[in-house]
Amino acid sequence: MDRDQLLHALRAVQSGDMSPEAALDCVIRAPFEDIGYANIDHHRLLRNGSNEVIYGAGKTAEQIAGIAARMAAAGSENILITRMDADKAAVVERAVPLFYDPVSRVGVANRVERPLVGSVVVASGGTSDMPVCEEAALTAEALGSRVTRLYDVGVAGLHRLLARLDDLRSARVVIAVAGMEGALASVVGGLVDCPVIAVPTSVGYGASFGGVSALLSMLNACASGVSVVNIDNGFGAGFLANRINRMKGIES
Amino acid sequence: MDRDQLLHALRAVQSGDMSPEAALDCVIRAPFEDIGYANIDHHRLLRNGSNEVIYGAGKTAEQIAGIAARMAAAGSENILITRMDADKAAVVERAVPLFYDPVSRVGVANRVERPLVGSVVVASGGTSDMPVCEEAALTAEALGSRVTRLYDVGVAGLHRLLARLDDLRSARVVIAVAGMEGALASVVGGLVDCPVIAVPTSVGYGASFGGVSALLSMLNACASGVSVVNIDNGFGAGFLANRINRMKGIES
Amino acid sequence: MDRDQLLHALRAVQSGDMSPEAALDCVIRAPFEDIGYANIDHHRLLRNGSNEVIYGAGKTAEQIAGIAARMAAAGSENILITRMDADKAAVVERAVPLFYDPVSRVGVANRVERPLVGSVVVASGGTSDMPVCEEAALTAEALGSRVTRLYDVGVAGLHRLLARLDDLRSARVVIAVAGMEGALASVVGGLVDCPVIAVPTSVGYGASFGGVSALLSMLNACASGVSVVNIDNGFGAGFLANRINRMKGIES
Amino acid sequence: MDRDQLLHALRAVQSGDMSPEAALDCVIRAPFEDIGYANIDHHRLLRNGSNEVIYGAGKTAEQIAGIAARMAAAGSENILITRMDADKAAVVERAVPLFYDPVSRVGVANRVERPLVGSVVVASGGTSDMPVCEEAALTAEALGSRVTRLYDVGVAGLHRLLARLDDLRSARVVIAVAGMEGALASVVGGLVDCPVIAVPTSVGYGASFGGVSALLSMLNACASGVSVVNIDNGFGAGFLANRINRMKGIES
Amino acid sequence: MDRDQLLHALRAVQSGDMSPEAALDCVIRAPFEDIGYANIDHHRLLRNGSNEVIYGAGKTAEQIAGIAARMAAAGSENILITRMDADKAAVVERAVPLFYDPVSRVGVANRVERPLVGSVVVASGGTSDMPVCEEAALTAEALGSRVTRLYDVGVAGLHRLLARLDDLRSARVVIAVAGMEGALASVVGGLVDCPVIAVPTSVGYGASFGGVSALLSMLNACASGVSVVNIDNGFGAGFLANRINRMKGIES
Amino acid sequence: MDRDQLLHALRAVQSGDMSPEAALDCVIRAPFEDIGYANIDHHRLLRNGSNEVIYGAGKTAEQIAGIAARMAAAGSENILITRMDADKAAVVERAVPLFYDPVSRVGVANRVERPLVGSVVVASGGTSDMPVCEEAALTAEALGSRVTRLYDVGVAGLHRLLARLDDLRSARVVIAVAGMEGALASVVGGLVDCPVIAVPTSVGYGASFGGVSALLSMLNACASGVSVVNIDNGFGAGFLANRINRMKGIES
Amino acid sequence: MDRDQLLHALRAVQSGDMSPEAALDCVIRAPFEDIGYANIDHHRLLRNGSNEVIYGAGKTAEQIAGIAARMAAAGSENILITRMDADKAAVVERAVPLFYDPVSRVGVANRVERPLVGSVVVASGGTSDMPVCEEAALTAEALGSRVTRLYDVGVAGLHRLLARLDDLRSARVVIAVAGMEGALASVVGGLVDCPVIAVPTSVGYGASFGGVSALLSMLNACASGVSVVNIDNGFGAGFLANRINRMKGIES
Amino acid sequence: MDRDQLLHALRAVQSGDMSPEAALDCVIRAPFEDIGYANIDHHRLLRNGSNEVIYGAGKTAEQIAGIAARMAAAGSENILITRMDADKAAVVERAVPLFYDPVSRVGVANRVERPLVGSVVVASGGTSDMPVCEEAALTAEALGSRVTRLYDVGVAGLHRLLARLDDLRSARVVIAVAGMEGALASVVGGLVDCPVIAVPTSVGYGASFGGVSALLSMLNACASGVSVVNIDNGFGAGFLANRINRMKGIES
Repeated sequence: MDRDQLLHALRAVQSGDMSPEAALDCVIRAPFEDIGYANIDHHRLLRNGSNEVIYGAGKTAEQIAGIAARMAAAGSENILITRMDADKAAVVERAVPLFYDPVSRVGVANRVERPLVGSVVVASGGTSDMPVCEEAALTAEALGSRVTRLYDVGVAGLHRLLARLDDLRSARVVIAVAGMEGALASVVGGLVDCPVIAVPTSVGYGASFGGVSALLSMLNACASGVSVVNIDNGFGAGFLANRINRMKGIES
Repeated sequence: MDRDQLLHALRAVQSGDMSPEAALDCVIRAPFEDIGYANIDHHRLLRNGSNEVIYGAGKTAEQIAGIAARMAAAGSENILITRMDADKAAVVERAVPLFYDPVSRVGVANRVERPLVGSVVVASGGTSDMPVCEEAALTAEALGSRVTRLYDVGVAGLHRLLARLDDLRSARVVIAVAGMEGALASVVGGLVDCPVIAVPTSVGYGASFGGVSALLSMLNACASGVSVVNIDNGFGAGFLANRINRMKGIES
Repeated sequence: MDRDQLLHALRAVQSGDMSPEAALDCVIRAPFEDIGYANIDHHRLLRNGSNEVIYGAGKTAEQIAGIAARMAAAGSENILITRMDADKAAVVERAVPLFYDPVSRVGVANRVERPLVGSVVVASGGTSDMPVCEEAALTAEALGSRVTRLYDVGVAGLHRLLARLDDLRSARVVIAVAGMEGALASVVGGLVDCPVIAVPTSVGYGASFGGVSALLSMLNACASGVSVVNIDNGFGAGFLANRINRMKGIES
Repeated sequence: MDRDQLLHALRAVQSGDMSPEAALDCVIRAPFEDIGYANIDHHRLLRNGSNEVIYGAGKTAEQIAGIAARMAAAGSENILITRMDADKAAVVERAVPLFYDPVSRVGVANRVERPLVGSVVVASGGTSDMPVCEEAALTAEALGSRVTRLYDVGVAGLHRLLARLDDLRSARVVIAVAGMEGALASVVGGLVDCPVIAVPTSVGYGASFGGVSALLSMLNACASGVSVVNIDNGFGAGFLANRINRMKGIES
Repeated sequence: MDRDQLLHALRAVQSGDMSPEAALDCVIRAPFEDIGYANIDHHRLLRNGSNEVIYGAGKTAEQIAGIAARMAAAGSENILITRMDADKAAVVERAVPLFYDPVSRVGVANRVERPLVGSVVVASGGTSDMPVCEEAALTAEALGSRVTRLYDVGVAGLHRLLARLDDLRSARVVIAVAGMEGALASVVGGLVDCPVIAVPTSVGYGASFGGVSALLSMLNACASGVSVVNIDNGFGAGFLANRINRMKGIES
Repeated sequence: MDRDQLLHALRAVQSGDMSPEAALDCVIRAPFEDIGYANIDHHRLLRNGSNEVIYGAGKTAEQIAGIAARMAAAGSENILITRMDADKAAVVERAVPLFYDPVSRVGVANRVERPLVGSVVVASGGTSDMPVCEEAALTAEALGSRVTRLYDVGVAGLHRLLARLDDLRSARVVIAVAGMEGALASVVGGLVDCPVIAVPTSVGYGASFGGVSALLSMLNACASGVSVVNIDNGFGAGFLANRINRMKGIES
Repeated sequence: MDRDQLLHALRAVQSGDMSPEAALDCVIRAPFEDIGYANIDHHRLLRNGSNEVIYGAGKTAEQIAGIAARMAAAGSENILITRMDADKAAVVERAVPLFYDPVSRVGVANRVERPLVGSVVVASGGTSDMPVCEEAALTAEALGSRVTRLYDVGVAGLHRLLARLDDLRSARVVIAVAGMEGALASVVGGLVDCPVIAVPTSVGYGASFGGVSALLSMLNACASGVSVVNIDNGFGAGFLANRINRMKGIES
Repeated sequence: MDRDQLLHALRAVQSGDMSPEAALDCVIRAPFEDIGYANIDHHRLLRNGSNEVIYGAGKTAEQIAGIAARMAAAGSENILITRMDADKAAVVERAVPLFYDPVSRVGVANRVERPLVGSVVVASGGTSDMPVCEEAALTAEALGSRVTRLYDVGVAGLHRLLARLDDLRSARVVIAVAGMEGALASVVGGLVDCPVIAVPTSVGYGASFGGVSALLSMLNACASGVSVVNIDNGFGAGFLANRINRMKGIES
């Protein structure tokens, strides 16, 4: 309920079209549905510009299926479910129509084709980063962005990256995904003039400390225009990239 | 030198308008100027959409003044200098016209008024975060963005933040600056539908560990659409915010 | 044995009602029972106001059963057992009457109904925090407190939390349970005027570092009146909440 | 503005006693005062049961004086200012009547005598912990609690602590302050049946890591009923202790 | 080969009783046996006062059996093997006579009864520390020390520890084993006048960080006379305790 | 394509022997092959002096087999594959001729005998470091270096190391492999006058923190001439050792 | 008051020689003196075999002087004061006779010559470790041990250490002091058959992390018989070394 | 004394040319000079191929001067002194002829011109890394290597680095110096076929953690042939680079 709606309601009270009690109820009523183990936020589309996303890691298959079904029943489309193992997906798809990608463990319930617009590039340091890359790419696609994938273009072989400069430079936003030393973010950041979202991955061993090395590298990227999301957070990068990609121009 | 320019040069070689040696020189000639202690990157505006920025912390006043003077001589305007102490600024302003803000330690050499466009909101948790906030705000303004400041709206008194919802929701990008527990990023992220750039600050003591607490909070923000820059990196946030703010719409 | 009891014993020695040796024995006799692998503290109820609690994680099922049985034999009721896996519970319930909750892995041996008093609110950031929440809630209930559960009210959707303000503000003590960025503690702390016990959880991935992110956030909570227990320590929060909830007023 | 006030206002709109615009203004009007560098929260006493507290560390003397003067002008008494160096205090006391303690760096502006009630015990491991102890004690006293100080009763000489058992056991809440290994919290926690607030201090060297050692000890305290605040956060402990100390009994 | 032996050999060369080549061989000949995957140090008994100990964790059962058999063949008795899983022990005992304790995973090959002397006390915080305690106790016993076990005497119930003061004070050396907050070392250190060896254990969860909390506590123990070994290093503590226990008095 | 080749191509354009478009293609054509999940770098031998190496940890058996087959088809010999589990090796050897060592998990596809030259010594602290040692040794051998193995010569028994001084001092480069406290690097560094490559291993427990203890020791080695690679990175050490070992003398 | 004294007192009560109140007073009377800022533990000599030691770091000069004067007045000799800066020492020596060493910042008040017995060796890695070494050596000497200093015998030049083998092997206890990589403890531990106390120092830079590198090395020392004290804790090592050095033999 | 010298001495004993006592003295005589606070290692040139280097950070000016003077008196030339502040240098140059560079704080006592050979390249990310770079370059030069400096060629402007490819590729060894994200090491490693020594610097702020970020990046460098030295350890890199640069070819 925004300012205008509130003023509208107050005027209805003034005019007698609404009782004070009804207005009170209207003001404090929460735009969500409590199903016991979760409060489903049906109005997030209005408030945040996108549906609530289901984080699958800490939930049972039954809980995921329940939430997705309730959201689908309320009319939501392209409901994203992240970090959902294949066996959970098998349960969920009995409750709702489900697209599922086992590499990234991303699911999209009630998937509906939509035109993909703009240009998001997902670049990765190595083949092992693919699950995180695909989480980012599938997220951005589910939300309506066109995605170009540039995989295995790590900085140890710069020519592989430089050969794709045209792709990089035509992007509206680049997602740079890398583990180990995470240098890709700095190098890409120096080559483009659009926002770069860096995603550190847990790929590596020893002093990579589960992604900490890449995370610190990216936070300290010497190139400007780079920001960072959590380790392995392909979803977060894809979500933000879509938001940036779909920005309108400034009205003059 | 991009693909088109290269093809153009090659054709000039073919037509005899350019010698192979000249073309070679052209291909490998670096678009920067080596002044001994620094390689000034005069083409960054073309490549990255903005001038090189001078990081003042590790340089002597003389080095800063030298770089700025050379850039000014090459025609650069609104040259940003960050983390420059007041005594260094006093030296630099003898070499180039300089705007200097002692709170954020930001300098702008060869400053030129330009119209400010769009809408960047800088929100902060507390009064102590002001130096970082101002670094962000002055950076974005120097690069051409209109900035609204919402200071001291930390989550311990939510009503202060909620009272400014209109400002928040009219932003094209929000910079959320907070130390201590850094919760501001999550809360703001849940209230808006534009990109949120989170800046952890080193404000705090004990287990804030110089900003680590806020940094981790922001990386783990439960709201979507949030990305993070380095601790106290107001410049980076302002730079990226300007880049996002000034995005054009997708051409159809 | 407190000061009064000691003086009483000494007077009995003076009067000849007790031999010095008996008094010595009385002074140094430990109010516990050594059963080989454990020293059961039968007087903790007197000294600390509650029974000894059995930490199940590092003990064999047989050890747990042995300790519980000995305590039950000594008359203890509502004996709490924490972090006990289901297969251990199956062994223990052959030795003592046992209530067992598989979500929180809490057991209560020799459970006896008692009136629940006061008001403890357990609020959580997300569905995945439920095991810790339930450990807290069941502990407080086993010790005699009335508990209200507010689950999945994380700060990314503030309206869900604000809709339950009446519940929050009627609490005598609030337990705020959250993983990831742990912002719930700060936000709740700013909304209530009772003590808030913050419980960081290990829910999350990457830079949540098994709960460290939430722990640091909570220790740095900008709201006053908040204190923190160990990561995932629902038991500790429930125990302390019950102690605070059941406090008597100051005698004038 | 709570539920009842809101219903009251809505009824005034219905009855024509208040215009919709005035009601709107009333609903969204923030109960704070924006003085440029700070948003003073005048309603915190109502919402949180105590005044806003001024964190002096990151503010200039002029900012502190300005905030305190504005609060005093609005009628606040016993305004706490923490982490204020002596030279800042000298500036502040020219603006408002000020009590100042240089050991703890605590100031109380507009100080008014009030009866001290209940019983808070502040126990410390060593003489070096005194600044933190006094911050806790002065805070609790400023908020109306009676405080007993037990300093230098560390666990390396248990008899010093055991000799004060009567004091400890008569407390309604104990604040245990210790650096180095922080064992005091566990030992005290095993001796009393009231809530224990543990405050790790940065006293120590080497592997004390500025208080981390004591912090971890206290979070892992094997005694129940213990919770922890930030390193050196005497204020937070004193604030919470007062809140617990002044609790009313459960109404039957 | 010590100084005297070397002088002796050199004189034999001078007298012609030994050839230079033989003396050279004697000087540089290593007192160990190379069996491919290990260099068995047969002279460690002379040099360090005890046999080489076999660290079982990183070796295959065959390697352990091979080393133990070779040492037994060379006449070693009471050969300690640490961190050997039960299935490895089953293999080893086919090669050498083996005593094996599954709780501590300690093995003793070629075990021979010997008189136990002096007094080592092993005190532990809780039942869950038993594997580490037994590793310490069995090690000290295998090396010839008499050991008294005081288990589950953690500081949350001080009376359990104080009741065993006689045992503690009659020790020549105390091993204090504790996880979680590790306060036992400080408390014991304050009660005795003999060396205390502190062993942090990985018992605990959350902010115990696999024993780091206890380790830091013990390194910062406020009592004097305490030193620390690695987390879970019962063997190291038992070995050192035996060495201290068996010290001779100073010859006058 | 290096400078000379580029000049050559440009001259061909000038002479009409090559079209501008062909030259352009030549300049920007990437010397790699994109097979979907990987960009195979066929020219690395020219640029870096060795083939691309396949990091097996994050790839499926099918991906490894595909890359190796493609490289073999392009004529590569002695293709190194690291961190490949035995079951993956079983799949790969159906696609290419494969040598596989299960201890180090190193594979060499299309292995061809070549003369081994120079002298690389691999020294290790203990038997448990063998997998890392063998990864280093097999890598150096696959690349053409002669390797001497000195295993189990840790500093706790210096005589074992000193007995092999001749071997150490005849090396052109030494690889020092050690876990736990990693002191071997410092001691070896003090004994030789050739480069020492230190490899920390994750062997150990407790405060070895998965190799961090050895890593820090080696970075702080008080002997000069020592550099360090990642924890357990036997491959990196072997690769670099081979590069150093095979260096030519300075041409005068 | 020990068991025998207690029994004695109880018998005096029985015989009427002591009133119950006097006995009570005797039992609970703390053997310390409360001087406001400190509880001086006059009975520590009886209980722990040595006087209380004054930790000078966190105390004012006046507090140190006050405690030392009170202890001297009570008859204590050789009162150790550690981490006392020279300007504090200047104040203290006006209150009590004081020996002061500016290198180690150790003071000894009321110093009295006593015969030094046994043999403690203090070995150090480098010249920069001298302050910690001297703290250890002066402590041990003040407590009655004979000390031999072997400085600058780090492992990068083993021959310097091996040349002093006779000194090392004649020790009853060795204190090994080293910063940087801390390898000295392992090497010394492999050469002697007496207890080794390792003291990590904060000497170094970068990845020495203020002594953490040396601390971890020493905790992971591969030699047996080594235990560790806090970083830079020369006092603790000297205290413990004296305790071990002065041990009596086992009575048969 | 090596094997041959020992055999020679033994034969002299056999032949009567040397007494056993003289031979003994010869075997155990340490090739160093004890001047109280230091053991000067005069034979390190023989054993390690270079003089002992004086680490100036933890020593007084007088100690440095004393050691350098003694070394000079013993005939050493080009004696390196690192981390020596200018005021110490002023003292030292009164004792020995001294070259001193205030940027890197490197001194060279008894400096003698020598021909510089081979090719070491020192490349750095930014101007602020210059002190570390110069420490590396001056060290390598003092030891006889020819050095090329490529400063301010960080990866945010790749063209600056690529323009110097000829320099990079003509090197026998490259030292890559970088702070912040340390990506330079990976990028350089991918461009050259010689050994790369990476030096992380403490340049940066926030999450650079004093060089930890760059250190981790470099340890995880995805390019092969890279090894790492301690943070800011320009000396170590220069020393090792010289050792590698001056390697002779393999004798066939």
